[in-house]
Amino acid sequence: MSTAIHERAQRVAELLAARQSKMATAESCTGGLVAGALTAVPGISAWHCGGVVVYRNETKQALLGISPELLSDPGPVSEVVARAMAERVLAIIPEADVSIAVTGHLGPNAPAELDGVVWLAVGMRKGDRSADVQVRKLRLPPLGRLERQQLAIEGALAFLAESLEG
Amino acid sequence: MSTAIHERAQRVAELLAARQSKMATAESCTGGLVAGALTAVPGISAWHCGGVVVYRNETKQALLGISPELLSDPGPVSEVVARAMAERVLAIIPEADVSIAVTGHLGPNAPAELDGVVWLAVGMRKGDRSADVQVRKLRLPPLGRLERQQLAIEGALAFLAESLEG
Repeated sequence: MSTAIHERAQRVAELLAARQSKMATAESCTGGLVAGALTAVPGISAWHCGGVVVYRNETKQALLGISPELLSDPGPVSEVVARAMAERVLAIIPEADVSIAVTGHLGPNAPAELDGVVWLAVGMRKGDRSADVQVRKLRLPPLGRLERQQLAIEGALAFLAESLEG
Repeated sequence: MSTAIHERAQRVAELLAARQSKMATAESCTGGLVAGALTAVPGISAWHCGGVVVYRNETKQALLGISPELLSDPGPVSEVVARAMAERVLAIIPEADVSIAVTGHLGPNAPAELDGVVWLAVGMRKGDRSADVQVRKLRLPPLGRLERQQLAIEGALAFLAESLEG
């Protein structure tokens, strides 16, 4: 894990502890690596619940109830699907107050308009049944898939930290 | 990611492709890093569904329905909980045929009898409602938490590959 990722994971852990908030993850293109980065922080099990890895569309539907219609149009790499992932993971993990969702197309063979696009969503539980969700769109530079994946992890942890600070 | 982990992830991907099997993960102490290691293999989205990260006990219960009784006795680091994780993740991800579950105590501050113990379970779907499950117990050497985590990831991928070859 890169130093940048580890530092950002530590910052997220500090902010969660300060707020006494527990978090959950919903990851597609980062495949579990945002959740995994957090486990490098000692004591994080007080604040990090876990989450879901929804790498395939069928699994986005099975675990999070994302509808086939949305996954078909606008498709999985979209603001609406990122929002739904952030909301739904809070619904299925009742002890979590905060969520981070990541869905993107890291390439290769992406359509030009989606190449390197990553949608991030941070959910903050309002009540039992609803969440405030903020979104951010990243456009990653033309790098290899794994380099882009590292940038997506960094971006997700940075967005989460900013949201927790705000 | 270490070369050993990457090579084992590639071997798992080859075996899944040869069997036309899709897989799912259920991770506690590895925190999403087994799922994440698989995403380094190009084209893996054909065979890797995703899965769950159940870092906290409450989340093991919420996402996988592991009972509070089992989580209390014998506790989350046990053969019975590893088995249940491997079975339940197949139940909630219908398109997956194969699962790998990982639960362990990487330290520090583990009770002596659990220090460095990792239970692995591989599930193979038999029918719609049941799975054959094989288990393996690892006893990791006295290393730091992150070094032990890397060994747990390697061990999980190795056990999965052996099960797919068998």
